[in-house]
Amino acid sequence: MAKAKTKTKVKSRVPAGYDLSKIDTRAPKELDKDEIKKKTLAIVQELDELQNLLYAESKHSILVVIQGMDAAGKDGLIRDVFGQMNPQGVKVSSFKVPTAEETAHDFLWRIHKQAPEKGIIQVFNRSHYEDILVTRVHGTCDDHTALERMKAIEDFEQLLSRHNHTQILKLYLHISHKEQQQRLQERIHIPRKMWKYNESDFKESERWDDYRKYYEEAFEGCSSIPWHIIPSDQNWYKSYQVATLLRDTLKGLKMNYPGLKK
Amino acid sequence: MAKAKTKTKVKSRVPAGYDLSKIDTRAPKELDKDEIKKKTLAIVQELDELQNLLYAESKHSILVVIQGMDAAGKDGLIRDVFGQMNPQGVKVSSFKVPTAEETAHDFLWRIHKQAPEKGIIQVFNRSHYEDILVTRVHGTCDDHTALERMKAIEDFEQLLSRHNHTQILKLYLHISHKEQQQRLQERIHIPRKMWKYNESDFKESERWDDYRKYYEEAFEGCSSIPWHIIPSDQNWYKSYQVATLLRDTLKGLKMNYPGLKK
Repeated sequence: MAKAKTKTKVKSRVPAGYDLSKIDTRAPKELDKDEIKKKTLAIVQELDELQNLLYAESKHSILVVIQGMDAAGKDGLIRDVFGQMNPQGVKVSSFKVPTAEETAHDFLWRIHKQAPEKGIIQVFNRSHYEDILVTRVHGTCDDHTALERMKAIEDFEQLLSRHNHTQILKLYLHISHKEQQQRLQERIHIPRKMWKYNESDFKESERWDDYRKYYEEAFEGCSSIPWHIIPSDQNWYKSYQVATLLRDTLKGLKMNYPGLKK
Repeated sequence: MAKAKTKTKVKSRVPAGYDLSKIDTRAPKELDKDEIKKKTLAIVQELDELQNLLYAESKHSILVVIQGMDAAGKDGLIRDVFGQMNPQGVKVSSFKVPTAEETAHDFLWRIHKQAPEKGIIQVFNRSHYEDILVTRVHGTCDDHTALERMKAIEDFEQLLSRHNHTQILKLYLHISHKEQQQRLQERIHIPRKMWKYNESDFKESERWDDYRKYYEEAFEGCSSIPWHIIPSDQNWYKSYQVATLLRDTLKGLKMNYPGLKK
């Protein structure tokens, strides 16, 4: 009985796919790093061609939402997977602490301005999800507000996908707390990485469990367009998964080069 | 006497560097295409590292203004030289026919909004110069207005370079009329290129001499920050020159990775 109850409780809060404690942060042991790296390079070349087609056809757009704890490897992912495509067709928006003008509007105002036009792959380095993550950890967004925001996010994502043919890929870069600690240590010890360090990094890292809880709630509350949990302790595996996902998404659009304009 | 007079006349209208009829559109014959391509690849790798440093240091920004006749190879240049850098630090703005909102403002309003923030390489695919080029060819900007606009452009470029440490590289992709005709023909015959074709392309091409004249006047009138005339009939030579120029510009900034923030 007790067992069954526990199981039900977990299920009701977080659907199977979004229980982070149940998802490995590392690659399956049988995978060979060098082989996967080669495969990724080949996929990245395919992506270059597919992105050109997306741009030429200009019927669809792609929005890639990247979330993850500090040092989860968001910047590196952008470099590895999106860095070989024509910069004319790839745009990156980094959402930092909102400005005074931004906070004087609804929380989706600054986000909507960065929505991709047709033909474009838009990458969000952090996103509207911060408004139900860091804000909850810091107590500036209560549970009720968070729930209201989740509804608004669901509606907003539907707007983009239904009214402008935007394919939305939502990625959570899933690392272990240990891996995060190690990467933050590198930031204070390796000169080339020092510029990435923020005073608050270690303090935020102490709130690990809170972040995890609110992430799971965000996945659950905004799952009409599903989240992809990307095991990310190893960068080579992370990039491989995302490159594959993006390639398959683009291929699924069944695009063609348009003929001469009439 | 007659000779001297001609010489003086030419000199007074267009400074030596900006007389397009005197500048070859092709690479020097002694250059080896394969060797140059290899060199370019090496420089592009250097650029990746230099751009990371620009981003990390965030003291300067780069603005690359790309102008040229239709089919001069602007898109290809962006792909070849800027396509290997981290897309987070490279932004491309394409300026097309202004919207109603844009024309309801001064001609630099939409341009200023796209000025690079520190740490960023911003690429303008066409630019504020269109307002003294295509507009003059089509008779919507008279000589007096053009002169006024040139002064405004000079002031604007000084503002960016003096008040936000922006290095401005102004590039004119210099092709021959014959090369242009050939490339336009490809657009109506090669399926993969058809999407680039515009009905007006051949009509505009007939105004070649007008465009050339107004280009030379633009170079002359806005030369406080100099123009670089890039022989561009061969794409491999074009990319090599621009990659070299960008590398030297970045190296000239004497950048360093910053230490830990205080």
